[in-house]
Amino acid sequence: MPPFEECKIRVRYADTDQMGVVYYANYLVYFEVGRTEFCRHRGISYAQIERDTGSYLIVAEARCRYRRPLRYDQEVIVRTFLQEMRRRTLTFAYQLIEASSGTICAEGETVHVVTDQQGRPRSFPDEYRRILLPEEETTTSNDPSKGKID
Amino acid sequence: MPPFEECKIRVRYADTDQMGVVYYANYLVYFEVGRTEFCRHRGISYAQIERDTGSYLIVAEARCRYRRPLRYDQEVIVRTFLQEMRRRTLTFAYQLIEASSGTICAEGETVHVVTDQQGRPRSFPDEYRRILLPEEETTTSNDPSKGKID
Amino acid sequence: MPPFEECKIRVRYADTDQMGVVYYANYLVYFEVGRTEFCRHRGISYAQIERDTGSYLIVAEARCRYRRPLRYDQEVIVRTFLQEMRRRTLTFAYQLIEASSGTICAEGETVHVVTDQQGRPRSFPDEYRRILLPEEETTTSNDPSKGKID
Amino acid sequence: MPPFEECKIRVRYADTDQMGVVYYANYLVYFEVGRTEFCRHRGISYAQIERDTGSYLIVAEARCRYRRPLRYDQEVIVRTFLQEMRRRTLTFAYQLIEASSGTICAEGETVHVVTDQQGRPRSFPDEYRRILLPEEETTTSNDPSKGKID
Repeated sequence: MPPFEECKIRVRYADTDQMGVVYYANYLVYFEVGRTEFCRHRGISYAQIERDTGSYLIVAEARCRYRRPLRYDQEVIVRTFLQEMRRRTLTFAYQLIEASSGTICAEGETVHVVTDQQGRPRSFPDEYRRILLPEEETTTSNDPSKGKID
Repeated sequence: MPPFEECKIRVRYADTDQMGVVYYANYLVYFEVGRTEFCRHRGISYAQIERDTGSYLIVAEARCRYRRPLRYDQEVIVRTFLQEMRRRTLTFAYQLIEASSGTICAEGETVHVVTDQQGRPRSFPDEYRRILLPEEETTTSNDPSKGKID
Repeated sequence: MPPFEECKIRVRYADTDQMGVVYYANYLVYFEVGRTEFCRHRGISYAQIERDTGSYLIVAEARCRYRRPLRYDQEVIVRTFLQEMRRRTLTFAYQLIEASSGTICAEGETVHVVTDQQGRPRSFPDEYRRILLPEEETTTSNDPSKGKID
Repeated sequence: MPPFEECKIRVRYADTDQMGVVYYANYLVYFEVGRTEFCRHRGISYAQIERDTGSYLIVAEARCRYRRPLRYDQEVIVRTFLQEMRRRTLTFAYQLIEASSGTICAEGETVHVVTDQQGRPRSFPDEYRRILLPEEETTTSNDPSKGKID
């Protein structure tokens, strides 16, 4: 299994700002789509995790480095890595790649804390842990090019 | 009491699109700010209605007529009318006025159905009804310039 | 050729609000995706229209009727009709259909005025007109179930 | 002059997600409001910088640490620091403070590169530099609690 999953989105007019490029906060929306599809590609839906286990992945930290602008109607590959998985935290890393040129336009990471519905920390359910990250991968972190939240 | 309440917002960079004007869906966000502030000016918070009574104002219909573009950093007066209040529905009407020129840039309406948390229709709580729309006003609708959803 | 084009989107977490459903303004974003894909399916990209002809489709009016809530991670079919095409205005109509059940969750329309970059009205370029709406269709309007802005 | 400027915003319904809190990407929108108001409080509008000098502040990096959730209708103080100002880059730092309790709910930074309209790097205009950051402050960075993008 490759250490990442990919999905494609297309930049909407709504995503742009008056500079003619994607507004900077919307990159974090693209990251969200990436991790939702990461889970689905690995066999579970994030919607189902929330519903079945009452576990929520609260964002504790987010970071994005903007390399090239993304523009209206471009197709963007969201490449998502499950960079690290500890008992109570998960770190995803992302690359946003403009599909026609293959250019990496942005990179980022999000750190998540697992909580119950009341926001109290809890452990990430084991059955989902095994699905998201098969055994052999759990010991090492999946490090994309450079991104790492220290 | 005038038949409307006003509040001011400032156009954010996030609200614009690559045409250099406010993206059309965001006018509905401005309407939402208008009705939240309408409630607050009349003495109750919409947050409190949801929390205390378990009543929700589901949007059943929304409409906007765009007259002039709104631009980044402009101050906008949101003028909100409680146009009609029936047992189970409310209709708000709105005008978005560019503050420095006084130009009406957009007009619109939203129709709301009162429901409980499960989405079942219910009557709007009487005590809130009286606060939002003092007795003398309840018999007639408050009709701004033209807007009326037929 | 059927009188409409369809595309699929998936509801993002970003699109929801604290009621647990898609926030009402975001339906207009889905409409935008619908008309962008309508153009692409008929053989031109809206991005290209803006770039090549300097023509812009300014929104003059938008309307949405909300029938059923849309929820996180649902797949939604956006069915887009080019309802009417006059010399200087276009009207699109939309249905948002929850894919797994086939339920129509919302319907709406947007009216557009063709302008140049300075916002002055102009005619819609003929070559694009013929592509978007083949000859036989141009005389009659394409009327989806009920929606019509009067 | 204190090393920061403050402004207040109120959380909109549109900003929340189905977890009942502000969606994580919207914190970056609040940061944007913070730096717009920072400029205005110091005597210039960011809109005017773009218009008069053709200089744009492209975001090169953004980071946010989420400490406590923000909720619908809460008032939030956006405290903005001009943390560092070099010839071609600016770094702003932010704190989002829930107004009624004084709790710091989030902290973050954005790094900006100065470019012309074509995206080419340029120096930040001197006259604006002097207004944003009076002489005595330019030599040292304005360091809020901890936030620093390394």
